[in-house]
Amino acid sequence: MKKEIALGIDIGGTNTAFGLVDREGNYLAGASIATDKHADINDYLKEMSAEIEKLNAFLKGQFEILGIGIGAPNANYYKGTIENAVNLRWKGVIPFCNMLKAYFPDIPSFITNDANAAAIGEMVYGGAKDMKDFVMVTLGTGLGSGFVANGKLIYGHDSFAGELGHINVEPHGRQCNCGLQGCLETYVSATGVKRTVFEMMSRYNDPSPLRDISFNEMSAKKVSELAEQNDKIALKTFAFTGELLGKALANTVAITSPEAVFLFGGLAKSGRLIFDPTKEALDKNVLSTFAGKVKLLPSQLSDNAAVYGAAALAWNELKK
Amino acid sequence: MKKEIALGIDIGGTNTAFGLVDREGNYLAGASIATDKHADINDYLKEMSAEIEKLNAFLKGQFEILGIGIGAPNANYYKGTIENAVNLRWKGVIPFCNMLKAYFPDIPSFITNDANAAAIGEMVYGGAKDMKDFVMVTLGTGLGSGFVANGKLIYGHDSFAGELGHINVEPHGRQCNCGLQGCLETYVSATGVKRTVFEMMSRYNDPSPLRDISFNEMSAKKVSELAEQNDKIALKTFAFTGELLGKALANTVAITSPEAVFLFGGLAKSGRLIFDPTKEALDKNVLSTFAGKVKLLPSQLSDNAAVYGAAALAWNELKK
Repeated sequence: MKKEIALGIDIGGTNTAFGLVDREGNYLAGASIATDKHADINDYLKEMSAEIEKLNAFLKGQFEILGIGIGAPNANYYKGTIENAVNLRWKGVIPFCNMLKAYFPDIPSFITNDANAAAIGEMVYGGAKDMKDFVMVTLGTGLGSGFVANGKLIYGHDSFAGELGHINVEPHGRQCNCGLQGCLETYVSATGVKRTVFEMMSRYNDPSPLRDISFNEMSAKKVSELAEQNDKIALKTFAFTGELLGKALANTVAITSPEAVFLFGGLAKSGRLIFDPTKEALDKNVLSTFAGKVKLLPSQLSDNAAVYGAAALAWNELKK
Repeated sequence: MKKEIALGIDIGGTNTAFGLVDREGNYLAGASIATDKHADINDYLKEMSAEIEKLNAFLKGQFEILGIGIGAPNANYYKGTIENAVNLRWKGVIPFCNMLKAYFPDIPSFITNDANAAAIGEMVYGGAKDMKDFVMVTLGTGLGSGFVANGKLIYGHDSFAGELGHINVEPHGRQCNCGLQGCLETYVSATGVKRTVFEMMSRYNDPSPLRDISFNEMSAKKVSELAEQNDKIALKTFAFTGELLGKALANTVAITSPEAVFLFGGLAKSGRLIFDPTKEALDKNVLSTFAGKVKLLPSQLSDNAAVYGAAALAWNELKK
């Protein structure tokens, strides 16, 4: 009998990563192709399916793909579509799951956005295995999130729930790519940290090597490295970032009362620099019923989280 | 065969209302007793069960109570308890559902807070019958809420989810009874409206009969009546209240993406005065994905909503 696996596909603006993951979370093999190479989605699907066939051949056909999970920007879980994604070349509404059927006619496929997939990944393979209520926050260029309540991901009415990155945290705050002002992700994300460094340099007089770096040369990683060396501007940047995240989480916790909030991604790797001020602000600003009760944890998913999450989505759906 | 009914009990600080409601939402009979009369909960339960027996006798024993649903402050759904409710005389953790067994040994009972019960009432009997994702906002002295996602009420990890009244809307805002500052309910509630009138009178110079009323004599109802007569201070008060509610809902919608938000209670009866500015602020401040898509609706529950909601909780649990 062939061993059963799921195919996880993570579609990003630049690259598409995919991998074969078994029920226990073992990553058997994977590969990637360029997403932005193909103006026509049919060419893209052709290349991807050929690569997947190669993977299967590499594994000597000992495995059977039971389901395909996909993480993609602006994915509609209910409809199996990718809708008007700004960072993809395929415009309009793409019936992605239906189009996949031409290449994998007998394999069911499921799609959601990458943060939701990461939340399911955490539930199936990570630190949320025994949790029914938690929040996953993914900190990258932007801020994504996935909410799980009663053991189920909250997709909401239109499948686009979980946009924590776009709750307002500052009425006349920073301009966001979404058209609004003061969205959480303009502060709490790699880009947000970069913006904050410049605000801190304008607000305070502490000398810092950060003052020799231009806006375009600045990165959250550099700020993190300097914070590790006790640079005051860098430390103030992290304190400010964590405080805003903690306050936003306090409001969120009052709504869904999660057992834990998981942080994932680049910023989460800054450890105590981000966790300490976040936890402090969360407990200080939350309704006393919840204070001190909500765990703030690093994600247990590895760097392949997006592919794991996509595979977990498939396993989760197949269980139903 | 006896007709099957549920008993709904709504426990308030002053009064306890209860009623017998059938599966279709027909309210057959009801009564009430004083909650605050009894320092000892056993005396309270004794009086209540005697009253319920009377109701049953009045209905000539033609009905069989299949389940009991209870709406109560600080109720823990998972544990069947009422925990440290400030506005009840019974202190500590009361094992309410267990204690009820002494009087109704064979009838299962379920408890949650009144706003959650109202949300379930809306889902079972009201305007959310065909919805799987919605939010119920109850506007009374304070602001309560119940969130439904994937067709299930979100209780959260500890059963205390849905505290929309205590999300922060103003960093250095009004003092709240909960110990925090700037909570939504200090602005959006009957009490909030009263506080806002005085802020508007201090901010603007418009003449108004409201200027002849002391703080202790003021009520949201008076403000509403004057707003109907185009009083400028009253209109500014409602515009301000709606704007804050709309902005808070915008943040909420980004998280759970509901099909609709229902408003219930005294303030909701002010109709367009509250609905118009709320809807405008919601659509203006929400991520464009959701703008114009979320319905803002008046609750379809009647004044007996709390009892209906409690009965609906029982019916909903019995279905499982």
